[in-house]
Amino acid sequence: MKIAVVGAYQTKFGELWEKSLSDLISEAIFETVKNSHLDLSQVQAIYIGNMLSSLTSDQNHLTSMVSEITGLNIPVIRVEAACASGGLAVSEACQSIESGLYDNALVIGAEKMTDLSSDAIAEALMGAASEEERNCGLTFPGLYAIMANKYFSEFGAGEEDLAFVSVKNHFHASLNDRAHLPFEINVKQVMESTSVASPLKLLDCSPISDGAAGVFLTSPKFAQKYAPNTKIFITASAIATDTLNLSKRDNLTGLKSTQIASKQAYKQAGIKSQDINLAEVHDCFSIAEIMAVEDLGFCKKGEAVIFETSGATKLGGKLPINLSGGLKACGHPIGATGVKQIVELFNQLNHSCGSRQAPLANIGLAQNIGGTGGTAVVHILQKLP
Amino acid sequence: MKIAVVGAYQTKFGELWEKSLSDLISEAIFETVKNSHLDLSQVQAIYIGNMLSSLTSDQNHLTSMVSEITGLNIPVIRVEAACASGGLAVSEACQSIESGLYDNALVIGAEKMTDLSSDAIAEALMGAASEEERNCGLTFPGLYAIMANKYFSEFGAGEEDLAFVSVKNHFHASLNDRAHLPFEINVKQVMESTSVASPLKLLDCSPISDGAAGVFLTSPKFAQKYAPNTKIFITASAIATDTLNLSKRDNLTGLKSTQIASKQAYKQAGIKSQDINLAEVHDCFSIAEIMAVEDLGFCKKGEAVIFETSGATKLGGKLPINLSGGLKACGHPIGATGVKQIVELFNQLNHSCGSRQAPLANIGLAQNIGGTGGTAVVHILQKLP
Repeated sequence: MKIAVVGAYQTKFGELWEKSLSDLISEAIFETVKNSHLDLSQVQAIYIGNMLSSLTSDQNHLTSMVSEITGLNIPVIRVEAACASGGLAVSEACQSIESGLYDNALVIGAEKMTDLSSDAIAEALMGAASEEERNCGLTFPGLYAIMANKYFSEFGAGEEDLAFVSVKNHFHASLNDRAHLPFEINVKQVMESTSVASPLKLLDCSPISDGAAGVFLTSPKFAQKYAPNTKIFITASAIATDTLNLSKRDNLTGLKSTQIASKQAYKQAGIKSQDINLAEVHDCFSIAEIMAVEDLGFCKKGEAVIFETSGATKLGGKLPINLSGGLKACGHPIGATGVKQIVELFNQLNHSCGSRQAPLANIGLAQNIGGTGGTAVVHILQKLP
Repeated sequence: MKIAVVGAYQTKFGELWEKSLSDLISEAIFETVKNSHLDLSQVQAIYIGNMLSSLTSDQNHLTSMVSEITGLNIPVIRVEAACASGGLAVSEACQSIESGLYDNALVIGAEKMTDLSSDAIAEALMGAASEEERNCGLTFPGLYAIMANKYFSEFGAGEEDLAFVSVKNHFHASLNDRAHLPFEINVKQVMESTSVASPLKLLDCSPISDGAAGVFLTSPKFAQKYAPNTKIFITASAIATDTLNLSKRDNLTGLKSTQIASKQAYKQAGIKSQDINLAEVHDCFSIAEIMAVEDLGFCKKGEAVIFETSGATKLGGKLPINLSGGLKACGHPIGATGVKQIVELFNQLNHSCGSRQAPLANIGLAQNIGGTGGTAVVHILQKLP
């Protein structure tokens, strides 16, 4: 696979009470096109990733909303897979270009979450879990807490190890003016924060955010003609799925969907996990990043804590992870997250990330998860000569 | 475009109180694969079209639900565009096969609607319209009533002309044991039925239905190897969009999105509107079929009533439309509708429709609409030697 990335944009993430879903989508569309130095009239199709618009904005026809925003009558496709909606939209756009049907496609991820009460949004998010899990009274922190406890008992890790992940990602976010929570925290603060679902505390959890992101993807041929300086390409895009119910899985200390999707992605790109310079992974909860670095093959099973606390995944380390601040601190406007990961990798590979720039940034990986891993999407971006 | 259709299935449409969304999806998956004489393990990807699961079934992670149902970890993609969700899922599946990424894809459309109260479902459906229209107190019958009144004033048609469409589609449904409303009605009954939004009466409106449908699509090469008797192919798949707000459109007596998508589809297939032998069109309200036959080029602008009442669109006529019974009488489980249209065309082209079989059935067209035409998807199916 070889899909050119010719432009990218991220809105500020946060509690954006003055902005509607439509405002966020508009900003992402126009600014992404502007950053690409192309014209809106050149866009041939738009993919939009969003999970909750019917619940949070009474809007269930985003394809037409996008047409009204752009004034274009081109194909618009909404793609949804809970928190993996953004990654899935990128993946579908890639294959639409690969098919030759379109020469290019704009991908927008957007979510407006803060107009609902915290109870209502927590209930809405449980739509990404199974009916049985909801009926047990489980919440998403509860489901990830089950995985964390199992991981602890199997590999001897503890709460302070998880805290390290949040501290690192907040440090990265402190260098990112688009982040929802752009400030540093320390391990003591994490340990003293309110328990949400033991062992997960408030500062182990990603926030409820509003925001949008966009990337403009084209065929290599189109890029050669209209954006001849393009050097960054998506070289792999893989999707895998797994059961809704945790209880139906063989293993709770890793995500089979990530393992399958990443293997396929490495194969597509013709590289190995060791070749990755930096990654954006789906740290909806701190334990999720721990599992991700193992599932993606960045270290051996059970060794993620050693790997993380060694400093390898921090800015300046050998494989910086979540330089954007991750879901934890950059924020997690659901449909936007998977697209924002591609935006961050694009900017890193362009060496335009200022104080949070990874010195070595030629090959990046993005892992976007739906629910407790019922869906996984993995992309690889490469800077090619 | 040349995508093989190797199998198709439709569940009974209706008020299926004993069946959940998951039950409907399961039935459509397993029976479609069975009808294809292939094995579930051969399926490489699944596309699912659904609009309302987050509101009607508290479920917002259908990709993972499908993985749990099948026991497979393959890519599953949910696609949504209000009432055009099913057609859009078929379209995305076609292009995923065209891209060479998959050799085949199963497409499922499903909707569970009758678990909500009528008020709640009417409100949920308004998610397919604009915020401004909702705030005016408009409903979907009201929006289509505006278009009907405009059509009446411009072309001199009347309520009895619309009634003819419902009578015809109920006649077709009376020959279809999968239909939600498989019985005949007459013009007097339509005219005497309760007014919903003048000039539209109860019997001008499609019902609220539960149901699912599936088609198994493959590359011609895959079909040649595993389903060598395949003769039916999708030869065109086109999407177009338009504004959410009716007030922002130039014209209210036709749908620009259908006009654009159908023109592209005819071009893709290398045929003209006159070559079509039969069609399934989106008759959510009787006026919608009147506009569709004009937008699709089956007759001139303003002549749809003459065309319909001539008998041309009835079984035995020169261009039978909605032999399944259409949305009006076969039923309209939203996400299923666009897929069911392909199922009906597949069965017609296979000459397996019994008493409602069109004598001449080599080229069929399906038109699937979202909302008031904010999204349109047009497919052409052909029986090739």
